[in-house]
Amino acid sequence: MANRAVAGPEVERLIQLLAKLPGLGPRSARRAALHLIKKKDQLLVPLAQAMGVAVDRVTVCQTCGTVDTCDPCTICSDPRRDTATIVVVEDVSDLWALERAGALNCRYHVLGGTLSPLDGIGPDDLTIDKLIERVAAGDVSEIVLAVNATVEGQTTAHYITDRLRGMDVKVTRLAHGVPVGGELDYLDEGTLVQALKARTSF
Amino acid sequence: MANRAVAGPEVERLIQLLAKLPGLGPRSARRAALHLIKKKDQLLVPLAQAMGVAVDRVTVCQTCGTVDTCDPCTICSDPRRDTATIVVVEDVSDLWALERAGALNCRYHVLGGTLSPLDGIGPDDLTIDKLIERVAAGDVSEIVLAVNATVEGQTTAHYITDRLRGMDVKVTRLAHGVPVGGELDYLDEGTLVQALKARTSF
Ligand SMILES: [Zn+2]
Ligand SMILES: [Zn+2]
Repeated sequence: MANRAVAGPEVERLIQLLAKLPGLGPRSARRAALHLIKKKDQLLVPLAQAMGVAVDRVTVCQTCGTVDTCDPCTICSDPRRDTATIVVVEDVSDLWALERAGALNCRYHVLGGTLSPLDGIGPDDLTIDKLIERVAAGDVSEIVLAVNATVEGQTTAHYITDRLRGMDVKVTRLAHGVPVGGELDYLDEGTLVQALKARTSF
Repeated sequence: MANRAVAGPEVERLIQLLAKLPGLGPRSARRAALHLIKKKDQLLVPLAQAMGVAVDRVTVCQTCGTVDTCDPCTICSDPRRDTATIVVVEDVSDLWALERAGALNCRYHVLGGTLSPLDGIGPDDLTIDKLIERVAAGDVSEIVLAVNATVEGQTTAHYITDRLRGMDVKVTRLAHGVPVGGELDYLDEGTLVQALKARTSF
């Protein structure tokens, strides 16, 4: 008799979908669904609307590769940002983590992953060509390779450095404040600030 | 510079609303938002739709007080359920927890809280009158008081027992497998099964 439907297929479906969110398991998804239903006007209605807006409007910035509701994105179109420094990250979550740290008033470039020959991921599967184009267009004096301190991240950093050789741009990487094998998104903001401030030549 | 918007107000709003879900904090809400955006077709679109359906269709069962998309609810309208046993719970989450345990093929009655004179919550703020009506309508032979093992829960159980005195119905409570001070929703299913099976006269 376990796991019988308690509230009709529509509520069960809501629970099942919530359980797919990172951080929520089957039981916490039920709690979340019940919380949403009880707070219908204060939370369920606004959240359903916010998701609908996200469905309709979230897009990928054709310049830097982050997600936003405008293209160019909020960051790329911000005139107060330093256009001479591009921080290269693997994923949007890394960009968000660096922005939370708030150490640099820079622009970004989201690679969309790392080189991984074993998984069949080559340079054409990432946004490396677009990064080279951005540098070739001038105006960029420094590329900060803020990739994860993993084998794939470092391999990707070396590949990008090779591609940028001969171009008039300084290539730096994050200081060794980042734990080896660690992922940016999980680090505290103080560590990220220090790693950015003490960045070294690559 | 910390906590700058990283992706426009629409995405920020989605993150803020997700952070209000139990089990998600500010950082895990950002992860969840990004996961939703990346899995737009597989997760964001279906979840937005499921929430929209919940907004439009979830209602409170006028018989037992649970939430469902039909009234009478799935449980109250299930002809295979024993109509002679009503398990009385404080909250919908307790009903869901007991259903997960699956020990009884019963119907339920959701009180909507407990008596709490200090908080100004009296019998009229709960669904106690409706419970008495259900018993008075006949067909019910047993009321299982599955309230939390808290002072308020036990006070409420005593009040309901007084109200049912003289009516032709057996009143039982959960066996003392429930830890004193504990809340049903947090218990493992095995404990709930034992507590229901060994329920005692009240
Ligand atoms: Zn951009
Ligand atoms: Zn019902």
